[in-house]
Amino acid sequence: MLSKTKIKLIKSLDSKKNRNEAGLFVAEGNKLVAEIIESQFQIQYIACTSQWFDQNKKYIYNRCKEIEMISDSELNKISYLKTPQNVLCIAEIPHYTLNPELLMGKLSLILDNVQDPGNMGTILRIADWFGIEHIICNHTTADVYNPKVIQATMGAICRVKVYYEDLEKMMLSIKSLSMPIYGTSLAGENIYKTSLKNEGFILMGNESKGISSNLIPLLDKQLMVPFYPENQKRSESLNVAIATAIICSEFRRR
Amino acid sequence: MLSKTKIKLIKSLDSKKNRNEAGLFVAEGNKLVAEIIESQFQIQYIACTSQWFDQNKKYIYNRCKEIEMISDSELNKISYLKTPQNVLCIAEIPHYTLNPELLMGKLSLILDNVQDPGNMGTILRIADWFGIEHIICNHTTADVYNPKVIQATMGAICRVKVYYEDLEKMMLSIKSLSMPIYGTSLAGENIYKTSLKNEGFILMGNESKGISSNLIPLLDKQLMVPFYPENQKRSESLNVAIATAIICSEFRRR
Repeated sequence: MLSKTKIKLIKSLDSKKNRNEAGLFVAEGNKLVAEIIESQFQIQYIACTSQWFDQNKKYIYNRCKEIEMISDSELNKISYLKTPQNVLCIAEIPHYTLNPELLMGKLSLILDNVQDPGNMGTILRIADWFGIEHIICNHTTADVYNPKVIQATMGAICRVKVYYEDLEKMMLSIKSLSMPIYGTSLAGENIYKTSLKNEGFILMGNESKGISSNLIPLLDKQLMVPFYPENQKRSESLNVAIATAIICSEFRRR
Repeated sequence: MLSKTKIKLIKSLDSKKNRNEAGLFVAEGNKLVAEIIESQFQIQYIACTSQWFDQNKKYIYNRCKEIEMISDSELNKISYLKTPQNVLCIAEIPHYTLNPELLMGKLSLILDNVQDPGNMGTILRIADWFGIEHIICNHTTADVYNPKVIQATMGAICRVKVYYEDLEKMMLSIKSLSMPIYGTSLAGENIYKTSLKNEGFILMGNESKGISSNLIPLLDKQLMVPFYPENQKRSESLNVAIATAIICSEFRRR
């Protein structure tokens, strides 16, 4: 039977402040929890139906300090999902240290103030699909450990490392790596026609304001996804996750 | 002052059944309503703040039968948005008839049971960006006149025509156009390497189930967006809107 303390803890992890204080986040559902169990994440607690437990007990041996079997109605009480799915876990937020040397020869993403949790989760899936292992964000970008983002990553959180940094400092420091920093801009070069290296950094900006003005001078090249036909402007802009997908696809295609 | 009948009407347009019976949909906000005013849509009603009216009266002359100035608190009552934005309008749902000849030489999208209103809106923006004018959906695809979808299209609804049809019948009938029908499949051909015509149809399937089994035999080619590196599978799938974006970008790049 779920304790009140546990219910309170799980509900409290909806807030970034509480997550950071506790160093914990929530993940739910068969598929996502299975991926968390296979990952490097430290799992503190699993609440599951007895059926889930029976099917998964061999995998969770030694992976979790506390496992509790609960009823469907108890799961309903603690779940962040509209349709709760058999299992919820609490895992520890990892402390990744950004080591610029790890980024050498790789393509990484930088996110400047991406606000929407859905976009953030989708961008992690895109990164995962295209083999991008590192995403560096400023502190005002959506928190990847927000339960909505965690669910939207659909497991990509287990493979993609997300760092929160002062972007101006970080971008100045990676200049020593001699890898290009690309950004997006409606006035940038046509991404289909310009040269692209398969290493470096792609900076994506805020949903409505784009890239912060202090970061623009730190870009090596500005890129633009042309609309079609080229001379006929239609939509005002592409959603940031959509633009990220098209740009990553174009880098990886070559 | 807003009548109770009007409030009831606006709120009723959240339901597909009511929208279809009334033949009406709701759109909100400065930018979107400005695009609706410039478009071919028939506008039946505008509720706006007096400030919006003063700034826009010259544009709405002859474009709307009934204009009502309302207070911010009245707008709060009728708005579907978390942060209402000065203006809400009711417009007539257009009756487009699918004329296959209009599709000749063009690239069009077919949506098979895309469920999420956010995905639907995003796909309209992608279509608009890439100059795709026609989207043909089956009847179980999210209704484009759902207020959430309308807002998510960010104006693309004014330029992209959406049709609801029996897809099997429709796909059989367009075979006579001799244009390829492309679909997506994890077992399809690598989209970066296979030949693509800049005309035809791209069929996108349901978020979790993909393309319906009865439609697969009607495809001329199945396409796949490869993950990177190619030999290492990571995320299980790309979101349908993300896949649409990457595929449309690849068609338009060439």
